[in-house]
Order: sequence, then C-alpha cells, then structure tokens
Amino acid sequence: MSKKIVIVGGVAGGATAAARLRRLDETSKIVMFEKGEHISFANCGLPYYIGETITDREKLLVQTVEGMSNKFKLDIRNLSEVIDINRNNNTVTVKDLRTGEQYEEGYDQLVLSPGARPIVPPIPGLKEANAIFTLRNIPDTDRIKSYVDHKNPKRAVIVGGGFIGLEMAENLYERGLYVTIIEMADQVMAPLDYEMASIIHTHLKDKGINLILSDGVKSFEDEGKKVVTQIGKEIETDMIILSIGVRPENELAVRAGLNVGERGGIQVNEYLQTSDPTIYAIGDVIEVKDYINEQPTMIPLAWPANRQGRIVADNIYGKNVRYNGTLGSSIAKVLDYTVATTGNNEKTLKRLGIPYQVVHLHPGSHAGYYPGASPIALKLIFDKETGKIYGAQAVGKDGVDKRIDVIATAIKGNLSVMDLVDIELAYAPPYSSAKDPVNMAGYVATNIVEGVLETVQWNEIDEIVTNGGTLIDVRNPIELEMGYIKGSKNIPLDDLRDRLAELQKNETIYVSCQVGLRGYLATRILQENGFNVKNLDGGWKTYSSVFS
Amino acid sequence: MSKKIVIVGGVAGGATAAARLRRLDETSKIVMFEKGEHISFANCGLPYYIGETITDREKLLVQTVEGMSNKFKLDIRNLSEVIDINRNNNTVTVKDLRTGEQYEEGYDQLVLSPGARPIVPPIPGLKEANAIFTLRNIPDTDRIKSYVDHKNPKRAVIVGGGFIGLEMAENLYERGLYVTIIEMADQVMAPLDYEMASIIHTHLKDKGINLILSDGVKSFEDEGKKVVTQIGKEIETDMIILSIGVRPENELAVRAGLNVGERGGIQVNEYLQTSDPTIYAIGDVIEVKDYINEQPTMIPLAWPANRQGRIVADNIYGKNVRYNGTLGSSIAKVLDYTVATTGNNEKTLKRLGIPYQVVHLHPGSHAGYYPGASPIALKLIFDKETGKIYGAQAVGKDGVDKRIDVIATAIKGNLSVMDLVDIELAYAPPYSSAKDPVNMAGYVATNIVEGVLETVQWNEIDEIVTNGGTLIDVRNPIELEMGYIKGSKNIPLDDLRDRLAELQKNETIYVSCQVGLRGYLATRILQENGFNVKNLDGGWKTYSSVFS
Ligand SMILES: Cc1cc2nc3c(=O)[nH]c(=O)nc-3n(C[C@H](O)[C@H](O)[C@H](O)COP(=O)(O)OP(=O)(O)OC[C@H]3O[C@@H](n4cnc5c(N)ncnc54)[C@H](O)[C@@H]3O)c2cc1C
Ligand SMILES: Cc1cc2nc3c(=O)[nH]c(=O)nc-3n(C[C@H](O)[C@H](O)[C@H](O)COP(=O)(O)OP(=O)(O)OC[C@H]3O[C@@H](n4cnc5c(N)ncnc54)[C@H](O)[C@@H]3O)c2cc1C
Ligand SMILES: CC(C)(COP(=O)(O)OP(=O)(O)OC[C@H]1O[C@@H](n2cnc3c(N)ncnc32)[C@H](O)[C@@H]1OP(=O)(O)O)[C@@H](O)C(=O)NCCC(=O)NCCS
Ligand SMILES: CC(C)(COP(=O)(O)OP(=O)(O)OC[C@H]1O[C@@H](n2cnc3c(N)ncnc32)[C@H](O)[C@@H]1OP(=O)(O)O)[C@@H](O)C(=O)NCCC(=O)NCCS
Repeated sequence: MSKKIVIVGGVAGGATAAARLRRLDETSKIVMFEKGEHISFANCGLPYYIGETITDREKLLVQTVEGMSNKFKLDIRNLSEVIDINRNNNTVTVKDLRTGEQYEEGYDQLVLSPGARPIVPPIPGLKEANAIFTLRNIPDTDRIKSYVDHKNPKRAVIVGGGFIGLEMAENLYERGLYVTIIEMADQVMAPLDYEMASIIHTHLKDKGINLILSDGVKSFEDEGKKVVTQIGKEIETDMIILSIGVRPENELAVRAGLNVGERGGIQVNEYLQTSDPTIYAIGDVIEVKDYINEQPTMIPLAWPANRQGRIVADNIYGKNVRYNGTLGSSIAKVLDYTVATTGNNEKTLKRLGIPYQVVHLHPGSHAGYYPGASPIALKLIFDKETGKIYGAQAVGKDGVDKRIDVIATAIKGNLSVMDLVDIELAYAPPYSSAKDPVNMAGYVATNIVEGVLETVQWNEIDEIVTNGGTLIDVRNPIELEMGYIKGSKNIPLDDLRDRLAELQKNETIYVSCQVGLRGYLATRILQENGFNVKNLDGGWKTYSSVFS
Repeated sequence: MSKKIVIVGGVAGGATAAARLRRLDETSKIVMFEKGEHISFANCGLPYYIGETITDREKLLVQTVEGMSNKFKLDIRNLSEVIDINRNNNTVTVKDLRTGEQYEEGYDQLVLSPGARPIVPPIPGLKEANAIFTLRNIPDTDRIKSYVDHKNPKRAVIVGGGFIGLEMAENLYERGLYVTIIEMADQVMAPLDYEMASIIHTHLKDKGINLILSDGVKSFEDEGKKVVTQIGKEIETDMIILSIGVRPENELAVRAGLNVGERGGIQVNEYLQTSDPTIYAIGDVIEVKDYINEQPTMIPLAWPANRQGRIVADNIYGKNVRYNGTLGSSIAKVLDYTVATTGNNEKTLKRLGIPYQVVHLHPGSHAGYYPGASPIALKLIFDKETGKIYGAQAVGKDGVDKRIDVIATAIKGNLSVMDLVDIELAYAPPYSSAKDPVNMAGYVATNIVEGVLETVQWNEIDEIVTNGGTLIDVRNPIELEMGYIKGSKNIPLDDLRDRLAELQKNETIYVSCQVGLRGYLATRILQENGFNVKNLDGGWKTYSSVFS
C-alpha cells in the first residue's frame, strides 16, 4: 500500500502533485527534487516584482521548503538536480548541488515536472554581451531587478513579443526605461490574429514603446550595448531581455529513452503516463492534445500544469482521471489593455485546413450610459455549418477576462454559437448590458449560421473596392471625418430606405459602418428589398485597427 | 405575407421585439404602443441618475420615438395606453393620453410587454404622506431627483431591501442622505441565502446605513415625516422610497381572459404564446419556468425581457424558437461590494424539498501576491449524488461578476461540479489564480461528491459543540485573537500529526480554520489516521459573517 513517489521539479506541477498526493495518502513516501533553491514560487509574478508592482519579494515564495515539508510531510530536497533516470532499476540519480555529491534514489512511481527553459539562440555577440537576461526563476529575477535597481539603465531591448516579453516591456517601461521590442513575426502575442494584435501594436506605440516587427536580431555588439537587426537597424541599449519562447526541459526524458514529440515535448497518454507507465510527466515539459483540433501541441501555462499536477496524483492512487487536452486560454495585461484568448485562432485553423467563420464585435464592457464603459474588441471563430466554437480573442481595457472565461466555459460545455445567445449572464449597468457582449457575439454568429447575415472581412474589402465593388458607408457624415474606407459611398442608415434607387440589384452591395451593427441593419433593409449584400464585419473599427 | 403586429409596451421587451421584427421583415406593419412618454429607456440606470453617477439624463433614453421610428420604420405611439384587448375581432382599444380619445387598432399578432409595477401596499398614512416615491420610469426618476436636488432632504427611508431598494440606498447615501432600510425579512436581497446576505448587512452598517431587519412598516405619520414599524420603532425622515417588489401589469390580460398564474403572471408556452395563440407575452409580466427546478416563477429582469423580445419576433416569423426557462442570474452593486447569484438558493431548494449540498469558499479575486486582490465569498449549491449544479452566490469587491457568469454558463452547458475543475480559465496574476475560484469551488464540491471530504455548516456547529462535540481549530494561535468559535480547542495544523493522541477515535472530530482550506488538510490527516472527521465549511470566515 505505502509507496514511494519521486517528483522532479518543485514548482507549479510538481508542488501541486506533491500536495495532492499527501492529501490522498498519509503513508506514502514522497520525495520532491528541485534543482533550484526555491520551490513553489510564483513564476507568473516575477515580471511584476521587477516592475515593483509587487514590492515584497517574500510574496513570490508561495511555499518554503521547510513550511511545505512540514505541512505535507514531504521529503523536499532543493538544490538537488536529478541527472538521470535509471529505468532498469527504478531509480533516479541525483546531484546535490551544494556538495556536488551524487546518489541514487529509488521510486515506485516517478513524476516529471521539470518545466521549460527560455530559448537562447546562438546569436553572434551573445557571449560577450554583459547585461543580457532571461527570466524563469527567482535568481533570474534577482539578477534583473538588481541590475535595474543599481545600474540605472535607461534603455532596454526585449527580444520576442510573446506574453512574457510584453510583461517585461510593461514592467521596465514602468520603471522608466525606454523600451524597444524586436519581434520576428509581423505581430506580437502569437495567440492573437493579426488584426487583434494590431490594437496592441498601436497601444505600445502610443505609449512610446519602440516596436519593431517582422525583423529579428542579427547580432549583439559592443558587449551588448548595441543590437543589430536582420534588416540592419541598430539599437543602443543598456540591457537586453531574451523572451523568444521556451523549450521543454526534456533532456532527462530523452536520455532515459522516453518518447518525445516533434517539438521535444514528452509524450504522455490521457492519464499523463509517459511511454514508461511508471513514469508520469506534466506541465511545460509535455506535449498535450489541443482541445479544439486534437493535434499535439505545447502550451506552457500554469493552469494546465496545476490541473495535471492534481490529475497525476489522483492517477497514482488509481483514480483513472483523464486529461482531456488543453484549450490554451490565456491572458495578459499590456499596459492599459487586457488581451485574452481561448481555443484556436485563424492562423491555426488555416494551417490545419479547417474551414471556419469569424465575427468581430466592439461591444461596451458594460452599459454605455453607466460611466467607465470601454469597448471590447471581441472576435469569435466558429464553424459555419454546425456553429461549433473554435476560439475567441478579446482586447480591451475592462471586462475582457470575463468574456473569454465565459466563452472558454461554453466550449467546455460543448455549447455552439447558437447557444451563446441563451447564456443568462448577470446584468446590472456597472457590469454588463442586458445583452452581454458574449450574447451579442452569439447573435451575430447565429445570424451568419442561419444565413440572415453575410459578411466580408477587413482584409478583403480594399481589393473588392479596387476592383469596382460598391461599398456603402452607412454612418452619419460627421463620423466619416475620423476616417473611412477609400472608395466608399456615404448613405446614412436613416436615409437608406429612401435612396435604394441609387443601388444596383445585379451586383453585391457591400456595407460598412462604425462597428458592424448599423451595417447589419442596412444589410437587412437591402436584403429584404432584393439586393445581394454583405456587411463589413467589425466595421471601420476593425478595419482601421490595421489600416490607420 | 405582410402582417400587422401590435406591441404593447415600448421598453425592454417591446422595443427589442419591434427591432428584431423589422430586421426579419421590411413589409410588416408594426405598431408599438407605450403609455408613457418615453420608449426604450434604461430602467436599470435610473437609480444612478438620481445618485448622479450618471449625470446626463439623455443617456437614459436609449432610443427616442422619432429616432427609432425612422431607423426601424415603426409606427410608435407613445402616451397611448392600450386599455382593452378585443380577442373576438383581433383589435386593441387604445386611449390617446394627450387627447383622451379612444380608438381601435387591429392586429394579426399581438405582443404584450407591459412590464411590472412597484407594489404599493395599503399602509395607513400612505395617502397623506408627501415625499413618498416609487421608481419605475423616467417621470418617477425626475420626481425623486428633483426632490433631492431642490428640497435638500437629509434623511431617507427605503422600504424593502431588494436590489432596487439597495441601489436606491446606495445612491441616496452617495447624495449625502442618512439612509434607513426597513426590510420585513431577516435579510436583504432575497436571492442570497442568509449567511451571504449577512456580509452585506455588515457592510451597510459599517457605512453608517441604518438597517432594520425582520420588521415592517406599520404606518406613515406626520404626512410621511415619520415611519412607524411593526415593532414600534419610529424613524424621522424627509423622504420615503417604496421598493417592496413589483407585480405584473396584468390587468389587460386578465380582462381579456388570458390565463395567468398564481402570482398573476401571464402564462405562456415555451414559444411565449399566451392561452390565445395569436397573443404573445414577454418580460416582467409573464410567469416563467425556473430553469433549475422547472416550477413556475416570476423573474423581473432585463436579460429575460430582452431575450424573450427577440424570441417572440423570431416566432412570429415562424422560427419556432423555444424559451427554456429563466435561471435568474442577477447582480447588484452595493456600495463597495458586488453581489451576484445564479440558479437556485438554499431557501428555494428547501421549500421544494430538493436535497442539496453546499460549499463555501473565500478565494482571492486574483493571485494574492499581485496587489489589489480581495476575497470573494463564494457559495456553490449542488446535488451530492450527481454533482448537478443548482446555483451559486458570490459577494466581494472584485471579480464576483466573472465567477457567477462562468457558473451560469456552466449550468447552461450542463456541466457538473466535477466538470468545474476542468474549465480552463485564463490566468495571469492580475486576473485570477492558476486554480481559479470556480475551479476551486469545483475541487471542494467534487471532494464532497467523492466522499473525500465531509463538512458541517456554519449554522450547525454551535449546537454540536454545546452538546459536547469536539471542535479543533487548526489555525495558528495568533489568528484566534481575531475571534474563534466558543468551545473549540486549538491545535495548529502543523502540530496536528504530533498531537493525534489527544483526540478520540470513537467520536466525530470537527475541524475549523480561517476559510476551510487548512481545515480540509486537517481532515485528510485525521481521516487517513482513522478518525471520523468533518470540516467546518467556509471556516471562521463564513461562521463569523453571521455570528460576529
Ligand atoms: C516570467 C514568467 C511569467 C509567467 N506568467 C504566466 C502567466 O501569467 N500565466 C500562466 O498561465 N503561465 C505563466 N507562466 C508559465 C507558468 O509559470 C508555467 O507554465 C508553469 O510554471 C509550468 O509548471 P511546471 O511545473 O511545468 O514548471 P515550473 O513551474 O517551471 O517548474 C519546474 C521546476 O523544475 C525544476 N527542474 C528542472 N529540471 C530539474 C531536474 N533535472 N532536477 C530537479 N529539478 C529540476 C526547475 O528548476 C523548476 O523550478 C509564466 C512563466 C514565467 C517564467
Ligand atoms: C429602477 C430599476 C432598476 C432596474 N435594474 C435592473 C438591473 O440592474 N438588472 C436587471 O436585469 N433588471 C433591472 N431592472 C428590471 C428591468 O428593467 C425589467 O426587468 C425590464 O425592463 C422588463 O422589461 P419589460 O419590457 O417587461 O417591461 P418594461 O421595460 O417596464 O416596459 C414596459 C412598458 O410598458 C408600458 N405599458 C404598460 N402597460 C401598458 C399599456 N396598457 N399600454 C401601453 N403601454 C403600457 C409601460 O409604461 C412600460 O414603459 C430594473 C428595473 C427598475 C425599475
Ligand atoms: C502552492 C501549491 C503547492 C498549492 O498546491 P495545492 O495544495 O494543490 O493548492 P491550494 O493551496 O490552492 O489548495 C487546493 C486544495 O485545497 C482544497 N480547498 C481549497 N479551498 C478550500 C476550502 N475553502 N475548503 C476545503 N478545501 C479547500 C481544494 O479542494 C484542493 O484540494 P484537493 O486538490 O485535494 O481537492 C502549488 O499550487 C504551487 O506550488 N503553486 C505555486 C507555483 C505555481 O503554481 N506557479 C504558476 C502560477 S504563478
Ligand atoms: C435599444 C433596443 C431597442 C435595442 O434593441 P435591438 O436592436 O434588438 O438591440 P441592439 O441595438 O443591442 O442590437 C442587437 C442586434 O444587432 C446585431 N449586432 C450587434 N452588434 C453587431 C455587429 N457588430 N455586427 C453585426 N450585427 C450586430 C445583433 O445580432 C442583434 O440583431 P438580431 O437580433 O437581428 O440578431 C432595446 O434593447 C431597448 O429598448 N433597450 C432599452 C430598454 C432596456 O433594455 N431596459 C432594460 C435594461 S436597462
């Protein structure tokens, strides 16, 4: 009955597994190895400690070795690196990093939760660069914070515009540094699609952050005081953060002959067992099944690590709990904005050849007549035939987290876009509208599924107009002063019924407005009057987030 | 094809129906009668205009008669009261309130959305009282605001502690009045259970609001300058708001012989047809099916009215869309707190004899190490056998709306408490925790379903201790200084394994802590060591929200 469980890695996945293991059984021997000094720390809080939003370093240490050992009767060995798994005799080889001593430790079951480490590409000048950092753990954090505190840097270059890069950009910006972000792709935050990321691009630039897209680092020069990009830009800097992404800490597993996937993630079955059933693996190091498209993928986030940590403990005690794949719900604060996503984006679906439909909306975070409402750019991606929800993205200053969480929940509940209209969300003016943004997204998407509405996208309309297509802008003339799509003709919605004679029935009429709502009303009038008509999805607002 | 649709009531339900009707068909004749001056106004914003959070009166008027008539090609007749339905010849009798003239208007289909009106009980002194108000529409609002603006009242009595009463209390408080709330029940906000409402009771008192519970108004005296309660309290006041509840505006329907339910709500089928299939009814005036318990009920809220307005339009055009009942998700801001609920509460389930289980939690609104987190008192009610979610309640300063909306979505997705742990919510420190409060509620509830955890409730423990039961408080001694349950014995969690000998195996051991988490850890240790043990659900925090 009493078994011995060895855990490699003592933070999100590992510590959660250890705690749950003990709750399920008082008698097992549980040994948790952590090569770093700290266990169970708040990885996700590290950027904010550097930025001094979090001021108390102690707060990052969720559990201490002593506290957690005592509370959960665990044998926790920090500064102890597991350097080999000896599957033939069910032991691991451990190196005590204090003494350099090595020893073997036996296990009945082994749990691997070693995480992932920042990618450090072999860029020329890297070794010579002085103030160049990556961020994963407390020592990294101390190094960066100490540099900012004592060396008084004025400029920083962030290489990589993923969420950790942007969090670092925000936090260094708030420490008063002039920040440059260099990103190889044409957008930051890969989980977003381009037009949604564009809102963030504008915001970063508005804040005075130097954003370089579609360009990579070619070399570091002057001991890291200068960053040279592929296309030859030169940026002077006092420090560099590499946040290009992470790669799974898979060496142990590979050496032990466990199966890993294409991108190096340890492969596990739905019970989180590796190719050796006595060895489980969880967290950033594993390959997971994408919840939407069921393809193998890597999603290094804390929710999956925590969830898997608990599941693994349950399974070790014979519960047979399945991990059903990762949806990839994620969120980040980027200065004044919140960015959140769930499920698949267009890029992913396109790559996999899955047909999809999208809608863009710009509803208020709460009732417009109650102060403080701000627009949410909300994108919903779904299957036009079945209404199945593939994913959603939202960018805004308020209420973004709620809407993405509601949609993530809807996905887990197997709700379609047609069901979104029936979700009864709590409404009072400070919080929402009587038709919540999620309901509204459901209405618009349902109209598409039911053929009540046809749309054209922001990236299609210019070509249509250039080729002679008719685009009617139904806003009021005064609104056009803020900008309009070249080649469009203005017929305000309220005049439309009286001016139908100006339009041709033998061609498709395209309609645009500010956010898509009045354009939709116009399409209804036109369609009912026998015209072929399509609405510019998301209106001027979505279009102009890219094109102006 | 082209039909004539007549709508009675031009606000939430009626205006929504009219707009959708027009979108579905350009040719129908649509006549909307509204007895008031204003259509399509923001009922829910009215208290905030009185409180001057909303400063621009225009903002309350979402659509004007002229604007909406034009945009949707509607025949809108305000100040026109429908005074009879003549089912024999499919007409309504209308009274033009400007001229006093009466006329008949024919319909092919009739939609009733006349709403509900404030209950005004025949309290002695009511007629003589001067500054006594109810709040339903713009003229009511103007009257109250004008009184506050010009008569400089110092004190207000709010009769009724429902959400409109509390919103008025907040808004008059913010205008600087000394506010008394008189509520007949032992708690405010009926959708909450008592221990959850108690948090609000404390908050109201902390703010200096005079809260009188379990007492009603006996009479108004001195022309409304004095309110005398049933038990004889006398409260001097400068104004009185009656917010005891609403009753359906059902006279038309009753006179026309349409079926109404016990509480007067018009009865409709799932397509929202009344007992006369050419007449539909929606909004506050109808009886709905409770989504959870399937009993008839009245839920006068804006989400249902809006949703039903759209469904009715669809059904008039032959779409056969079902309204599946009302969950009753609701939310209110009460000074610094947000209160939200969805589904059924304990009181309802008890009344219906449905067995249930509850859990109370106090998770942070987001990660504790990131500034600004505040606790959410979260209660989840479910079936212990199947894990079916019956309802949830939350009270806190931040993140309450999100968690209730997620649970409301889970309910619509038919997710059980066991499924809540698998909802992949978006996590970064400013927004949530790696295990979101909803996941955590799922974990605790699942442990109960699976028999890993047994609990005792806040209202059971005193009697148990009085009768000699053993209650162990596993907090640290210093925490007890803030209060503890009389008769409990302190054994800090970290010492528990060493002090098992102090406990008896032949009795149930009860355990308590601050919020329930450490108590749970203690129950695991004790259970694994062969004790019978129950955790005080929600810990000291839930207990003390009532008892201290
Ligand atoms: C700066 C930063 C911000 C983040 N922000 C967010 C966020 O906002 N939201 C979010 O969802 N996720 C965020 N994450 C990601 C999240 O922290 C990870 O997904 C999660 O911690 C993964 O858990 P894990 O157990 O797999 O790995 P980790 O938590 O990284 O733990 C792995 C541990 O294993 C140890 N280890 C590795 N190899 C060995 C060995 N051979 N022997 C002994 N020990 C070993 C490592 O030292 C490490 O401490 C962030 C990460 C970082 C670095
Ligand atoms: C102060 C206040 C605050 C509120 N706050 C919230 C909130 O925060 N959240 C929420 O969900 N709900 C709230 N509500 C409730 C919400 O406003 C109602 O549920 C919703 O408006 C109901 O819609 P309805 O169409 O049934 O009725 P209403 O919107 O009330 O419209 C009915 C209309 O019909 C007219 N009418 C009645 N009889 C006749 C007749 N015979 N002929 C012609 N016209 C007639 C009335 O004059 C009225 O204008 C609030 C209500 C009030 C009064
Ligand atoms: C700190 C850490 C060890 C906690 O692990 P944990 O004990 O599983 O998690 P929590 O402290 O949140 O407690 C959850 C447990 O308490 C129970 N619980 C929570 N609130 C409860 C309550 N009010 N009443 C009863 N039980 C409660 C839950 O059911 C759960 O127990 P279970 O898994 O047996 O069902 C681990 O999460 C960790 O190391 N975190 C830091 C690292 C990290 O996650 N980084 C990434 C994000 S920054
Ligand atoms: C103002 C009022 C008439 C609006 O009714 P409405 O036109 O149905 O509602 P909205 O203006 O929100 O528009 C919703 C419509 O626009 C569509 N829409 C919204 N955003 C869109 C977008 N970006 N692109 C395309 N279509 C969009 C929706 O699909 C929906 O159309 P559908 O019903 O045909 O599917 C009505 O809600 C009302 O009177 N409200 C005030 C009273 C009230 O509700 N009080 C209680 C709360 S305070």
